[in-house]
Amino acid sequence: MNSINKNDIKVFRTENSKLDQTDFENLAFGQVFSDHMLTCDFKDGIWQKPIIEPYGPISLMPSAKIFHYGQSIFEGMKAYKDKDGKVFLFRPMENVKRLNKSAKRLAIPELPEDFFMEGLKALLEVEKDWIPEKEGSSLYIRPFVFATGEGFHASPANQYKFIIALAPSGAYFAGKVKVLIEEKYSRSANGGVGYAKAGGNYAGQFYPTQLAKDKGYQQVIWTDDTSHEYIEEAGAMNVFVRIKDTLLTSPTSDRILDGVTRKSVLKIAEDEGIKTEVRKVKVSEIVEAAKNGDLKEMFGAGTAAVISPISGFGFRDEDFELPELENSYAMRIKKRIVDIQTNKAEDPFGWRVQV
Amino acid sequence: MNSINKNDIKVFRTENSKLDQTDFENLAFGQVFSDHMLTCDFKDGIWQKPIIEPYGPISLMPSAKIFHYGQSIFEGMKAYKDKDGKVFLFRPMENVKRLNKSAKRLAIPELPEDFFMEGLKALLEVEKDWIPEKEGSSLYIRPFVFATGEGFHASPANQYKFIIALAPSGAYFAGKVKVLIEEKYSRSANGGVGYAKAGGNYAGQFYPTQLAKDKGYQQVIWTDDTSHEYIEEAGAMNVFVRIKDTLLTSPTSDRILDGVTRKSVLKIAEDEGIKTEVRKVKVSEIVEAAKNGDLKEMFGAGTAAVISPISGFGFRDEDFELPELENSYAMRIKKRIVDIQTNKAEDPFGWRVQV
Ligand SMILES: Cc1ncc(COP(=O)(O)O)c(C=O)c1O
Ligand SMILES: Cc1ncc(COP(=O)(O)O)c(C=O)c1O
Repeated sequence: MNSINKNDIKVFRTENSKLDQTDFENLAFGQVFSDHMLTCDFKDGIWQKPIIEPYGPISLMPSAKIFHYGQSIFEGMKAYKDKDGKVFLFRPMENVKRLNKSAKRLAIPELPEDFFMEGLKALLEVEKDWIPEKEGSSLYIRPFVFATGEGFHASPANQYKFIIALAPSGAYFAGKVKVLIEEKYSRSANGGVGYAKAGGNYAGQFYPTQLAKDKGYQQVIWTDDTSHEYIEEAGAMNVFVRIKDTLLTSPTSDRILDGVTRKSVLKIAEDEGIKTEVRKVKVSEIVEAAKNGDLKEMFGAGTAAVISPISGFGFRDEDFELPELENSYAMRIKKRIVDIQTNKAEDPFGWRVQV
Repeated sequence: MNSINKNDIKVFRTENSKLDQTDFENLAFGQVFSDHMLTCDFKDGIWQKPIIEPYGPISLMPSAKIFHYGQSIFEGMKAYKDKDGKVFLFRPMENVKRLNKSAKRLAIPELPEDFFMEGLKALLEVEKDWIPEKEGSSLYIRPFVFATGEGFHASPANQYKFIIALAPSGAYFAGKVKVLIEEKYSRSANGGVGYAKAGGNYAGQFYPTQLAKDKGYQQVIWTDDTSHEYIEEAGAMNVFVRIKDTLLTSPTSDRILDGVTRKSVLKIAEDEGIKTEVRKVKVSEIVEAAKNGDLKEMFGAGTAAVISPISGFGFRDEDFELPELENSYAMRIKKRIVDIQTNKAEDPFGWRVQV
């Protein structure tokens, strides 16, 4: 694998910064993009040198395979600034490794880890003023790879582009999150690509999610496609369920994304003395617990949404509300994670990486 | 829905035709593209007027959702020329309707049928010299839609582009087709998007197909993701199995593409007095039949590959060869279809559409 240092990466600076025109007080999620991006092309059988250039349009032939065969993967990370202006990433190597896990499954050439990590560090140096300081905001980082090689034959492309783009962002969800436990549509197949962050996994969720929204839910909780008896995960979050005092979450599989936040939640819960169980969770068990009062909390966990408490769920035309707890696991764990991410608390796990 | 006539479509002609430089005698599949394309944008909540313009690069922002969430669909059709230079399509309304079926599942706004059909007719008028006359060659037509709207929020885009591009093409498979019956990886989930021609369905097949190629097979035959006991379809073809004198094919479902060629094969077989059965086909049944000599033929059926006889299959490290038949169903049916497509035979079914 090639190796590169962040100082070797050429920077072509924009002459028209949008920084002054950006309202950092009122950021939506992933709608505003920073001035520069990292780009890196795969051609002639190797990943070429990455560069940093002004964020701007990409030119592609209509026969580029991204348009036809969905050959694309991505990651989602965040950069945080502490009160002294120091910049941090959270467990970034997890994303680097997962991108390559996704690459392999989607027949995309794996990216040298350095190109990603050193490239990201170089980009963040150029773009550090784009990292919001406001609580609850952060710089969302979107590394992605897609097929630029041409042809209508349904086979892998011979050219690809890796980009890291940055979006200063506020909260992913606007308000309360009510979820629908889905029994008809599915997110992924046994032996499919569900464990990869492949573009196609997301487009397939839009229509069922739209149907759920029309009924008043913000998110779908997917169940296994064979029996629909077990919960899997949400659109862009892993899911936790607290029954009595135990925190449950599904084991990862080839259908479920191995979330960095999920792993971190499990670790923090353990550290906090909260009992956790990683095992298949039956829908019927959740419904039962909701009915008899044992269901205390549900929440989603993901980089974009951080920890999102779920206020209620729908299942088979029945609606279940969750109690509002004073000292919820969700809030306890969220505070620990965010404090570690933003350098407000000690980091006993070695997750924070200063850049 | 809006309505349009082919004569209303503005044509912006190229000044640099590539027609003279194109070797029509040695065409690969989907590698050479004609001079013009039809383009049509969805914005402000409606599909704008389509135009015909020179085939060339598209400019997209890095945050366009096609790059991130795989929101894309496509179709595959062919135009044929008879010996008098008349131009024909084969059951084109099936593709128009299927594109919109795919659109719905992928949360893409449905396209007015006229925009597609009249647009295609107008494009073929401009590009008629690109239709190969050589036997076995044809003009492959690739209509596709993808998300151009921007944002990192995992939700449907607000802008899309519809394009029809054309590729004069030779055969899809270079030689014999040996297939591997797959038991580990899957193509689609119950309740998923397998029945749609969604980009992401194809990228997910590349890696397992590569593994099969490494073992000497050209294609994978997918099985159901729950039990892997039943065959479903191949990468871009539906699959037929002849046991004794009966032609079997799986019923379509939400996991299997409802192929135009498949439907046509069933109709022709019926017309030819060949016994057909549309029912779930067990892998064990095929293996059994291969062992006792009842398995006479297998073939794939799809627009790109037409009818592709399968010369043998692999299953669990065992290889099975199929006999070479004198008067195979595959060849009989292929001749009937191709003769109808190319105006060499009567069309009792009303499938051929002159443009
Ligand atoms: C399908 C899916 N599940 C779970 C997650 C959460 O993963 P992570 O915590 O690594 O962000 C994500 C998104 O990031 C996702 O897309
Ligand atoms: C997955 C899949 N199955 C089957 C087919 C065959 O369908 P048709 O005969 O309409 O081309 C195709 C391609 O066209 C396909 O992509």
